[in-house]
Amino acid sequence: MRSLGNRTVLYQQNVAASLGLYNNDFLSIDILREKGPITAGELSKLTGLTTGSVTALIDRLEKNGYVRRQNDPNDRRKVIIVPLYENKDDVINTYQPLHTAMVKLAASYTDEELALISQFLGQASAVLEEQIDQLGSTARGKSSS
Amino acid sequence: MRSLGNRTVLYQQNVAASLGLYNNDFLSIDILREKGPITAGELSKLTGLTTGSVTALIDRLEKNGYVRRQNDPNDRRKVIIVPLYENKDDVINTYQPLHTAMVKLAASYTDEELALISQFLGQASAVLEEQIDQLGSTARGKSSS
Repeated sequence: MRSLGNRTVLYQQNVAASLGLYNNDFLSIDILREKGPITAGELSKLTGLTTGSVTALIDRLEKNGYVRRQNDPNDRRKVIIVPLYENKDDVINTYQPLHTAMVKLAASYTDEELALISQFLGQASAVLEEQIDQLGSTARGKSSS
Repeated sequence: MRSLGNRTVLYQQNVAASLGLYNNDFLSIDILREKGPITAGELSKLTGLTTGSVTALIDRLEKNGYVRRQNDPNDRRKVIIVPLYENKDDVINTYQPLHTAMVKLAASYTDEELALISQFLGQASAVLEEQIDQLGSTARGKSSS
């Protein structure tokens, strides 16, 4: 798991670099793609970045066409960040070789095996989310003291 | 996989922050733990950081007791970076809750299932390493042009 973790971090850094993006900018794009439109405050909480950093980050991403700010249709007082991620050809092209390699890897397993692996990955992801929450609250505790 | 990937990146960032380390410093510690003692040049290649950045990074880590520079016993002309990682109580303590949660998750699977999952994780890790190599050579191609 830790070996895969390091590779994942390095891979994300390399993808970000090849797209000319800061690591946290790229990570935020990926989080938005997963979560759908959220507010700047929610993005700040999810990334652990300060609201000031997130504002600058959204400015950069909006300028480069990765996201768009718009009024929340459910609450006009709120501004949400909408990902424009999947439309960007350079993002799709950058991920394409990984996608192809992963599809090939998955093809060497049966449907039953893939269901088991997928279940494990989902659970591991949930464990990590919980751990991030706990680390985040510890760090916030430290910085406010 | 992508959801787990984002969680992994965020988790590593949070661990680094809670230890008061830069992300790349923490990542380098983890790579050294995995690979064992390597030269600064090898670490530079693995992380994709410039040799100048790696030198400054090793200075910081040595100062904080995470690594030690020493002459390679097999080749006295070479200096290798030796991880002192596992001795650091604050690192162990920071990882402990994740370790406990992952052991608990693993206990809900049979040995046979865990062997399959472990095989998949190893293969996914190898796929990522290959992709990082390819992205790295693309990025180097770009920056030298």
